[in-house]
Amino acid sequence: MRTVGALIFEGFELLDLFGPMEMFGMQSEDFELVAVAERAGPVKSGQGLSAVADLSLEERSEFDILFVPGGPGTRREVVNDSLLAWIARASETAELTLSVCTGSALLARAGVLDGRRATTNKAAFEWVCSQGPKVHWQRQARWVEDGKFFTSSGVSAGMDMSLGAIARLHGRERALEVAKFAEYAWEDDPGHDPFAAIHGLV
Amino acid sequence: MRTVGALIFEGFELLDLFGPMEMFGMQSEDFELVAVAERAGPVKSGQGLSAVADLSLEERSEFDILFVPGGPGTRREVVNDSLLAWIARASETAELTLSVCTGSALLARAGVLDGRRATTNKAAFEWVCSQGPKVHWQRQARWVEDGKFFTSSGVSAGMDMSLGAIARLHGRERALEVAKFAEYAWEDDPGHDPFAAIHGLV
Repeated sequence: MRTVGALIFEGFELLDLFGPMEMFGMQSEDFELVAVAERAGPVKSGQGLSAVADLSLEERSEFDILFVPGGPGTRREVVNDSLLAWIARASETAELTLSVCTGSALLARAGVLDGRRATTNKAAFEWVCSQGPKVHWQRQARWVEDGKFFTSSGVSAGMDMSLGAIARLHGRERALEVAKFAEYAWEDDPGHDPFAAIHGLV
Repeated sequence: MRTVGALIFEGFELLDLFGPMEMFGMQSEDFELVAVAERAGPVKSGQGLSAVADLSLEERSEFDILFVPGGPGTRREVVNDSLLAWIARASETAELTLSVCTGSALLARAGVLDGRRATTNKAAFEWVCSQGPKVHWQRQARWVEDGKFFTSSGVSAGMDMSLGAIARLHGRERALEVAKFAEYAWEDDPGHDPFAAIHGLV
């Protein structure tokens, strides 16, 4: 059993968080989901609905899988030193660290992506790159794996990446089984990214 | 501006709810999201994380768009008479009524789908059919539109259906724009459903 610790903050993007949490959460025998925020309790998303943080950052930073969504709130959190320090600490002890969309700007600011390949969403690509000048940003990728770091492109790409992480941990057959029950057409090629061209990046 | 009223209950499926809410919620100038449950406050999903109900059922039943997710909790709610009566009332006044996955079992039990075409997820198809013997259940469909009712297949199909509803309300170009910013490969053909065969229904 692994615990997925999902960091949330005001203005997180709904699907960045809950798409991946569906994929992990469907396998309750293997993954337990925990949402963490600066304060436990309701946290408003960028789209207006709220999720509940089960724990505060002070209560816990050790998880098997650290998960960081993006969303409009990342523009504020990239200068939140205590949050960034928590990310660095949580990533240090995690088996895997995952981000979706502009969540990789937070990982970059926390310093954990320096010298590594990573990606982010294609609509805010230049801004994210500017948050991590030592990161080897990939302009065209559905998601990127570099060691224990999985970073995905925008919003819905987090689901494809999470199935990739599930495939690494439990094998490709398991990931296909999860996709089948979610009736999800898994884009299983991390290099296939038509949105890079749609957003004018290639 | 339209208000989307999303019904939630203990054991709702995360992606059933939040995939569609991402698609509507991204357009904050046109859609406002409200979550409603028997009691306002935290409501635990089937996967373990909780969302917050902004309002109780008693507080409001009039929304422009009524949205009903599925999930393991539907097995309990199909015999919750007060919840079903609320659904019937809310659907009566809504411009559109949408459901994802086993959410259509709740619509069927509320009687609002009688004589209409509808679909549901493919892993629990027979059970859902048994909840609405007067509904014309479609074994193979990503989603079905019949008048103001949109019902989708399992979990991730709700995103495709919601983009279909957005296309009806604001035109196909708008739906494509939303998909582009969500970096989502919209399955825009409601009849294309490979999961019906995967789950042995055709």
